[in-house]
Amino acid sequence: MPKTITWTRRHILSLVDFMPDEYNTILQTAASFREVLSRRTKKVPALQGQVVANLFFEPSTRTRSSFELAAKRLSADILNFAPGTSSLTKGETILDTAKTYLAMGADILVVRHQAAGVPLAIAQEMDRLQSGTSILNAGDGQHEHPSQALLDLFTLCSLLNPNNPTLEQLKGKKIAIVGDILHSRVARSNIWSLTAAGAQVHLAAPPTLLPKLFLDTLPDAPNGKLFIHWNLATALEGADFVMTLRLQKERMAQNLLPSLREYHQQYGITRDRLKPCQPDVKILHPGPANRGVEISSDLMDDPNLSLISQQVTNGVAVRMALLYLLGYSKANEYN
Amino acid sequence: MPKTITWTRRHILSLVDFMPDEYNTILQTAASFREVLSRRTKKVPALQGQVVANLFFEPSTRTRSSFELAAKRLSADILNFAPGTSSLTKGETILDTAKTYLAMGADILVVRHQAAGVPLAIAQEMDRLQSGTSILNAGDGQHEHPSQALLDLFTLCSLLNPNNPTLEQLKGKKIAIVGDILHSRVARSNIWSLTAAGAQVHLAAPPTLLPKLFLDTLPDAPNGKLFIHWNLATALEGADFVMTLRLQKERMAQNLLPSLREYHQQYGITRDRLKPCQPDVKILHPGPANRGVEISSDLMDDPNLSLISQQVTNGVAVRMALLYLLGYSKANEYN
Amino acid sequence: MPKTITWTRRHILSLVDFMPDEYNTILQTAASFREVLSRRTKKVPALQGQVVANLFFEPSTRTRSSFELAAKRLSADILNFAPGTSSLTKGETILDTAKTYLAMGADILVVRHQAAGVPLAIAQEMDRLQSGTSILNAGDGQHEHPSQALLDLFTLCSLLNPNNPTLEQLKGKKIAIVGDILHSRVARSNIWSLTAAGAQVHLAAPPTLLPKLFLDTLPDAPNGKLFIHWNLATALEGADFVMTLRLQKERMAQNLLPSLREYHQQYGITRDRLKPCQPDVKILHPGPANRGVEISSDLMDDPNLSLISQQVTNGVAVRMALLYLLGYSKANEYN
Repeated sequence: MPKTITWTRRHILSLVDFMPDEYNTILQTAASFREVLSRRTKKVPALQGQVVANLFFEPSTRTRSSFELAAKRLSADILNFAPGTSSLTKGETILDTAKTYLAMGADILVVRHQAAGVPLAIAQEMDRLQSGTSILNAGDGQHEHPSQALLDLFTLCSLLNPNNPTLEQLKGKKIAIVGDILHSRVARSNIWSLTAAGAQVHLAAPPTLLPKLFLDTLPDAPNGKLFIHWNLATALEGADFVMTLRLQKERMAQNLLPSLREYHQQYGITRDRLKPCQPDVKILHPGPANRGVEISSDLMDDPNLSLISQQVTNGVAVRMALLYLLGYSKANEYN
Repeated sequence: MPKTITWTRRHILSLVDFMPDEYNTILQTAASFREVLSRRTKKVPALQGQVVANLFFEPSTRTRSSFELAAKRLSADILNFAPGTSSLTKGETILDTAKTYLAMGADILVVRHQAAGVPLAIAQEMDRLQSGTSILNAGDGQHEHPSQALLDLFTLCSLLNPNNPTLEQLKGKKIAIVGDILHSRVARSNIWSLTAAGAQVHLAAPPTLLPKLFLDTLPDAPNGKLFIHWNLATALEGADFVMTLRLQKERMAQNLLPSLREYHQQYGITRDRLKPCQPDVKILHPGPANRGVEISSDLMDDPNLSLISQQVTNGVAVRMALLYLLGYSKANEYN
Repeated sequence: MPKTITWTRRHILSLVDFMPDEYNTILQTAASFREVLSRRTKKVPALQGQVVANLFFEPSTRTRSSFELAAKRLSADILNFAPGTSSLTKGETILDTAKTYLAMGADILVVRHQAAGVPLAIAQEMDRLQSGTSILNAGDGQHEHPSQALLDLFTLCSLLNPNNPTLEQLKGKKIAIVGDILHSRVARSNIWSLTAAGAQVHLAAPPTLLPKLFLDTLPDAPNGKLFIHWNLATALEGADFVMTLRLQKERMAQNLLPSLREYHQQYGITRDRLKPCQPDVKILHPGPANRGVEISSDLMDDPNLSLISQQVTNGVAVRMALLYLLGYSKANEYN
């Protein structure tokens, strides 16, 4: 652990107003947990006796497992809320469900929901009740997915400086985000963290998935460092990093795309397409990937190019850091 | 923990034959666990190495999570039986499923089933096999839900005497239970515990959900202290506590109710309706609630009136007490 | 634990090439864990901090619970992969799913899949990546179910010699396997372990479920000790042990069987049918059983004849042994 940690935020809902110090605290805390994970015994007693409840109203294996493992490695107790077998079908409101877990003694609620704003609404209710419970947004609709963007950030910064990852490392770097920007909570969260780091963020997608007015949909969009491309080649030119996004197949049913094949031909990332990038360019993908659609299969499997498996590994360390910092701020309240 | 505990019951299936001493032992054990739960580290090693299997043939989030957390805080290992992915669809009998968990080494089986009597049948089979395994009924059909009634009892008694909750506190209190009495296992279990405490229990519901002959359906009904009302006002007059029950929406399809709206108008608990009650009346609800049907939304959220969130909190403490006492009786057998 | 253990196999995928020393190491390790399970505190810290991921693409309660409990009793952390709520529905490949768990830090993947060969394919990918992760086949299509055959083996050997179970005990014993041999991964795995022990294995089933050419479907079938019967009586004559297999009801829809009733009349195991067996014959069944189809109800419940509940109990001990040995080989790599 960093010797002195300053952390005051009770909920992690969005990165839109994150301060550089907060990013750096997370990066450094994650770096120390990353080191714990390389030991044979990968557990620390930091959250012993605390309860983390996973409220995944939208199903997920990857993110839920990652949070679950992070919580277990901090020695917390975990409650998994299974929407299928839940009281929701019995007409209970989401806030009442959350309050039930609060009343059971949950210290941190990790919330995923298909509708934007649900984690915020729960957090406001928790604060109104002066409960001290923390809410961690694990993805809400097309709004934000902060822990994904933070693990992406950690993956990039710790690649560039393994011993001391900080926001500084990304200053002036060119990062292309390619894919269904319009519907992507991953892209939204990454826009805040990457521009906060001083990176140049280049968004690339077909016009239906990246309308001219996209920037206007962002609150206080940092226009200066954000660029929009409908042509993949210009977005990739000189890029240090390329983030591909998962293409939801339902976009075609919505007439936003002609076909997966055409999408791949124009916006799929392939070895050939990467030629105008920096020679040491690296690829990220939040997973799960459609091989041969948004990214070619051989790229995914090339350890010299793909950071995908590091993203997953770092995901556990970053989520340990987030749970730890939220628990830490709570511990201070106890003392 | 109380210094000396006497507990001999191996299974908790029904409250019909519970003795005052048993109620008081549970209340006092729960009180000490309630204190544990207010600490930062909410765990005790009481059931370390023992296995609690949650056999929930009927889906449930709330009760299952409560038992799961209670077991975790006693340091037990938990097995969750998921009916959807189970051997039941392969034609295995319920008793064979239970015996599989017995053979795996389960010490306590927490059983919920949509049919009345299943926990009893499993308990009888466990005893026939001289297994020493305990069965805890977590709700069986329209029969009983003992742990819910015990947490209700604990909530009432510890409100009246936080340091030393006993049955005594409820002597002569007037408690109204309002709603779908006929189909409610919660009501049935509460009838036994509350009348055992010497409370006056007033049941209120439309005639279709509380037939004249209801008392005859109870084994050895304690008629003296049980009253039936088809008119809410008389049931609430002078009441110290009001328990509302969840209204299953399928009752309308069964032609037992005209509409949710009419039900609310006649039997829904609202601030206005509470006027004839005692000035410090409190409301309970087993959850999940239909806001605006059996209870108005503002009442649910009023911390001066609603005990709902305390019920959930106490649920964990009471279930810890039940698991502890069953495990305790087992420990004595080991010695 | 045996004082010195030699174990070098990284994956347990099939028993076809298992060596006698490997069987004996498992039997002896399981025997020592069986002893642990009879204590009040049934936990050892052997796999503390290691992660066991249950990847059950095919649903299962019994085998998954058994592995989960085994892992918990070794103090490992467990991740359960739930196929219903998984990324698979999002088009992710099985190998990508497995690699996600690898990247999260899983040390052992327990894999069940409806298609034969999936655990092998994952193991090959893990080795290609030099990950050191172990794969344990928990049942793949109609191919193999090694942990089931090993618990059957342990049940037989430890019945004959509780203190020192070894392959030796089964030399020359006659073991009948009765039922749907053709489609049974349990039968296939048992064929390898039992013939390796020098037992005489007699397979009995209707011709549709045990075609003449069945032996040709086995790789290097040990013909010398394997016998095929279409008549149950000759298979049972003088048998020391009878293994019944679960009859999948879908076999009738496939026109492989006339009716369950006729199947029971000709191949169902009943007390009467056992008369030509050895006087101390014992029955095994991998569960879940169809009472009254492949086995009569009274036989299942007769503790003098049925080893079924011992199989379940031993299943936990044997799976602890398998996870321990795989973790053990890994620990050596760390040192």
